[in-house]
Amino acid sequence: MAIDPRFFDQVGADTVEAWAKGSGAKCVGEGTGAVTGVGAASTALAGDVAFFEGAAKGLGSISVKAAAIFVSEEHVEGVPDGVTALIHDQPRLAFFAMASRAIRRKTIADQAERIHTTAAIHPDAKLGPGVVVGAGAAIGAETVIGANTVIGPGVQIGMRTEIGPNASLQCALIGNDVKILAGARIGEAGFGVAPGPEGAEDSPHFGRAILQDHVTLGANSCVDRGAFDDTVIGERSKLDNFCQVAHNCQLGRNVVVAAFAGISGSVTVRDGAMLGGRVGIADHVTVGTGAQLAASAGVFRDIPDGETWGGTPGRPIRQWMREVAWLQKNAGGKKKAAREPKEG
Amino acid sequence: MAIDPRFFDQVGADTVEAWAKGSGAKCVGEGTGAVTGVGAASTALAGDVAFFEGAAKGLGSISVKAAAIFVSEEHVEGVPDGVTALIHDQPRLAFFAMASRAIRRKTIADQAERIHTTAAIHPDAKLGPGVVVGAGAAIGAETVIGANTVIGPGVQIGMRTEIGPNASLQCALIGNDVKILAGARIGEAGFGVAPGPEGAEDSPHFGRAILQDHVTLGANSCVDRGAFDDTVIGERSKLDNFCQVAHNCQLGRNVVVAAFAGISGSVTVRDGAMLGGRVGIADHVTVGTGAQLAASAGVFRDIPDGETWGGTPGRPIRQWMREVAWLQKNAGGKKKAAREPKEG
Amino acid sequence: MAIDPRFFDQVGADTVEAWAKGSGAKCVGEGTGAVTGVGAASTALAGDVAFFEGAAKGLGSISVKAAAIFVSEEHVEGVPDGVTALIHDQPRLAFFAMASRAIRRKTIADQAERIHTTAAIHPDAKLGPGVVVGAGAAIGAETVIGANTVIGPGVQIGMRTEIGPNASLQCALIGNDVKILAGARIGEAGFGVAPGPEGAEDSPHFGRAILQDHVTLGANSCVDRGAFDDTVIGERSKLDNFCQVAHNCQLGRNVVVAAFAGISGSVTVRDGAMLGGRVGIADHVTVGTGAQLAASAGVFRDIPDGETWGGTPGRPIRQWMREVAWLQKNAGGKKKAAREPKEG
Repeated sequence: MAIDPRFFDQVGADTVEAWAKGSGAKCVGEGTGAVTGVGAASTALAGDVAFFEGAAKGLGSISVKAAAIFVSEEHVEGVPDGVTALIHDQPRLAFFAMASRAIRRKTIADQAERIHTTAAIHPDAKLGPGVVVGAGAAIGAETVIGANTVIGPGVQIGMRTEIGPNASLQCALIGNDVKILAGARIGEAGFGVAPGPEGAEDSPHFGRAILQDHVTLGANSCVDRGAFDDTVIGERSKLDNFCQVAHNCQLGRNVVVAAFAGISGSVTVRDGAMLGGRVGIADHVTVGTGAQLAASAGVFRDIPDGETWGGTPGRPIRQWMREVAWLQKNAGGKKKAAREPKEG
Repeated sequence: MAIDPRFFDQVGADTVEAWAKGSGAKCVGEGTGAVTGVGAASTALAGDVAFFEGAAKGLGSISVKAAAIFVSEEHVEGVPDGVTALIHDQPRLAFFAMASRAIRRKTIADQAERIHTTAAIHPDAKLGPGVVVGAGAAIGAETVIGANTVIGPGVQIGMRTEIGPNASLQCALIGNDVKILAGARIGEAGFGVAPGPEGAEDSPHFGRAILQDHVTLGANSCVDRGAFDDTVIGERSKLDNFCQVAHNCQLGRNVVVAAFAGISGSVTVRDGAMLGGRVGIADHVTVGTGAQLAASAGVFRDIPDGETWGGTPGRPIRQWMREVAWLQKNAGGKKKAAREPKEG
Repeated sequence: MAIDPRFFDQVGADTVEAWAKGSGAKCVGEGTGAVTGVGAASTALAGDVAFFEGAAKGLGSISVKAAAIFVSEEHVEGVPDGVTALIHDQPRLAFFAMASRAIRRKTIADQAERIHTTAAIHPDAKLGPGVVVGAGAAIGAETVIGANTVIGPGVQIGMRTEIGPNASLQCALIGNDVKILAGARIGEAGFGVAPGPEGAEDSPHFGRAILQDHVTLGANSCVDRGAFDDTVIGERSKLDNFCQVAHNCQLGRNVVVAAFAGISGSVTVRDGAMLGGRVGIADHVTVGTGAQLAASAGVFRDIPDGETWGGTPGRPIRQWMREVAWLQKNAGGKKKAAREPKEG
């Protein structure tokens, strides 16, 4: 993914050679290609640097488009032709460290004025007292921003969008007719931890957070930006308060999400799915079109289109309810059971 | 419920006739009554407009006091005498659209100054730097407001109340000796989604959020305003961080709520009830006086006074514990079971 | 624990005698010792006042170092020699009331200017627009503070630390290279409720919140300050969004905590433990070194070093999975079960 220059600055390291030099990696291949972005190994695009770690059988999935890839010595033969290998003992950490140095997120803390002079704010937009707007940000007509909300550098906001007070947005593209309630956090770094020589290290995040038209996001909810891809919430999806949408998630259209949903990294939720309160979804899971998850479900596998699941670990709701009823019946305690109506 | 003019402006549409005209509904009945508010079909008061959708058997519950009610053609005969019928193919959506146009929430984004000149702030109140106070808001003696907190238009706050930094309040009435910790969100729109012709639509919320005397609300917690009624937290109720109190909830006095409680719309929690950490309560449920919910309980039905429930779906705690123990015993794995003490 | 004068002022009551007088307690013992802090009964240090309630057998654990202790008449004989007894019908409430009067948290609402003149801000630190910094706070070199964030009086922040927008910190000591994401709340009062004559009363909190070097804390997460001790998050521990770390918790080094963790009061989590999403831990529990808790686990007892637990109530993960599989098999519904792969 090419770095979005509205949100990130590439500082110097714009060739594979520079990445090799900066990271101390041994460079096998052409080594002079232009670097314009970073990516995941399997989806890296032209100009991207990536890293590979893991079992050798995964080498086949390395993108042939990547400019360069950090790998360990033992894996160098598996790097596709045309992709420069950057050989390092710790490919992931070397990549993270170099990427963090080469790509710098623009920060609102660099500016002295509340509304940056380069921000493009439509005359019909309304900004409450204390609103801060970063360099290069854009705010459309009839959009309303609540008091003390912070719009980071480069953030683009459409028309007729309403943002509550004390919210903060960065690395974000926001559509038209969006509602973002008070205290929501959009575009923060996702959560990823890698073991390093001195202990736990944060994984950097270079993607964006995108809320399409007519999305509603509840109070104090969070939508993290992607790692190497974008986090996207599709048109007319509606999320309640306290929802967590982690890095790289893809929510479709008309997805309805009740409070306290925990949608882990790289989850896909297809159009029209409905998530009850406090649903948890493990990373990389896909929830099918029109699927429904009962309140408090914890799902660790893909949910087929149109099915309703519940329980933890999640299972088809009828199965879950059968298990609940069977257990209640068989665990005895007749008097109590008699007091319980059957629909429980 | 009459619209509270401290929080909402009624723009023009102050007769049933105007609502019919504005929404394109066919008006059957007198059609000239004054409109002063909106309500739910069953509890609408004089001057209220409401809507009815659903099975015909529900028609009997329509309030005879309502000024007018949006209904489909097939239900017009069921509308009580004296209530004007506003006939529309999509009663709910027509009502929502018209109500959203006719009743506008006052917004802090309309003002340029941090402290509005019409705000009534007691000279003994203390406001931190960056605090924003809306038009017509009132703040009592010895009340302390943390830095960068936003007090919306018309919000009334009593005496000796303490509000932390970066909180936001709107459409809210706050008593004396209340504590609201940092980042709490009070009076945001509740979560409600209705299907519309273009996809999911938000339900509008015209009620208020009320925190009575001596209430404590934890950091980053949310209390949404009601839809057509108020959300109320009774005297001396104490809520931890990350609590969600949805629209129309009624919490009694001395209710104690640990972190991550998810109290869904229109839930009633009676005096002295205690909710453990991460309790979830489905909408319209009543939790009885002095009832207790064990940590992580997910309840979908009314809880009788004084009882203790746990598990998901919630059941009396002894039954839940018996089921847990029975399952552990019968699922085998003797060696592991032996390692487990019995009190688990 | 001696009161940290950076965060709290002791107003007058600096002798045991003054505490007796102020609270109306009957003073048995020397009664003239200096009071410099408050503590829990069992861990009170020299100069501390504490309270004792409960069964008489607990009297033996009262710290012999305490300056004075509130007790009921019946327990006065159990107070250690050298500790003054402050006899009161309601020891806890008397102590809370007197402590709350005698020890006042410094508040940002007392200052008019955004950046207090006594704050020590390194010239290489960057503060975004709208940042508020309290009296006596210190911010180290190359530290970056996001817009509209509030740094309370006396808060100490190290070097190269990055704090997002709209966060708030008070009663906090923050190390070097720490990352605190947007909307995080650090150092708020913990949650504690005691029954009083008029209903529920909040327990006061006089401790601090400490984040050691290289800690990362996710967006909208909360770390409460301790009651009489500190809440501590050890070096390189990494916490996701929506994490709750309650008063007095002690997290070790390299602890990894996924979103929605609910870590109750006085929990200990040892080095290298990993908590999956939405893990709940009951108060006073210890999670052992390198232990792992599966997503959604709810644990009510100590977890041994290195073990992996899951389920609610928590049990060793193999046991939990065996129970899940056994229940699924025995509750019947063959057709559905056949559709389910076995790894679930």
